[in-house]
Amino acid sequence: MPSAVILLADGTEEMEFTITYDTLVRAGVVCCSAYVPAEKGAEKRQYATGSRGIRIMYDAVFDEQQFLPTSYDALIIPGGAKGAETMSTNPAVQGLVREFLANDKIVGMICAGSLTALSAKLARQPLTSHPSVKAQLENDFDYSEDPVVISNKLVTSRGPGTTFPFALTLVELLCGEAKRAEVRGPMVFPLTRRSRSH
Amino acid sequence: MPSAVILLADGTEEMEFTITYDTLVRAGVVCCSAYVPAEKGAEKRQYATGSRGIRIMYDAVFDEQQFLPTSYDALIIPGGAKGAETMSTNPAVQGLVREFLANDKIVGMICAGSLTALSAKLARQPLTSHPSVKAQLENDFDYSEDPVVISNKLVTSRGPGTTFPFALTLVELLCGEAKRAEVRGPMVFPLTRRSRSH
Repeated sequence: MPSAVILLADGTEEMEFTITYDTLVRAGVVCCSAYVPAEKGAEKRQYATGSRGIRIMYDAVFDEQQFLPTSYDALIIPGGAKGAETMSTNPAVQGLVREFLANDKIVGMICAGSLTALSAKLARQPLTSHPSVKAQLENDFDYSEDPVVISNKLVTSRGPGTTFPFALTLVELLCGEAKRAEVRGPMVFPLTRRSRSH
Repeated sequence: MPSAVILLADGTEEMEFTITYDTLVRAGVVCCSAYVPAEKGAEKRQYATGSRGIRIMYDAVFDEQQFLPTSYDALIIPGGAKGAETMSTNPAVQGLVREFLANDKIVGMICAGSLTALSAKLARQPLTSHPSVKAQLENDFDYSEDPVVISNKLVTSRGPGTTFPFALTLVELLCGEAKRAEVRGPMVFPLTRRSRSH
């Protein structure tokens, strides 16, 4: 079965984390949430406090020796300003992003998580992010406002409101188009796009 | 500021819980997650394990003496088959649902959470739910397949894919239409409904 490591930090946008993790589990992807502490010792608490106060217990503490592209098929970096800052400024996270892509493994970034593309010094390529960090990214990447942008193995997206299509795109890339449709059905998205669905 | 108690149990659909809680917090609603134990002593763990394995720490243990409609403006019951079974079969939860509605306070139910309308013996009225429990509800309620159904103070919805409109409807009812628009913007929903957005 495919597997994914999903980073989690204090200040992570908990909808982006939860929708991605849950949707991947529905597709049969083995998920591991890995906590990136902002300062030494923070991992003693065993949970991360999300951007809106939801406390989520993590599966493991982030360790660049453990979460290698030889063991996992995808590395996911959610947003939330403070959480994304912790992840994107972490040299071990930056190195792992480069290593996953060099090994032709999927890297997903959403919202402010896309800042990691800059800090990891990825080559210019199509990318999107939360509008609030567009100015930091548009000079170094081919910035797009599409809900989900696929650039080889780098998948980027915009915010909580685009996390379902982001997660379903990851399902499609990891498990195929039929699995995407199979997972999507029971989630009961609104049928009529013209109705006031959001 | 408006306030809401959001129930949480082992087996709760973690996307439905998280999207609702987070969106209400964004609107300035004071949220309290209240754990409904399936059996005595389960509350010693301090967290609930969601339907797809995400462990969420709760703010309080459910207590019908504490979460009264005199103290809270809304009572929310998320889905997830096992979590919704625990909630809907709990006599204290059933009583509190009736008490909130009798006091003209909002009750939200989503997915299998709508089964609580039946177990609490609410009067026939418009309602929706996850399709998987439609057969249990359609004889006693005016069953609808709309993404969100508002029946006086009872707001029902269908599944993870309708949780954003469900949560934003609760924001509108608790905080007004302007607040709904204010909260919705930064969540960055896809602009073009014709694109493959889910």
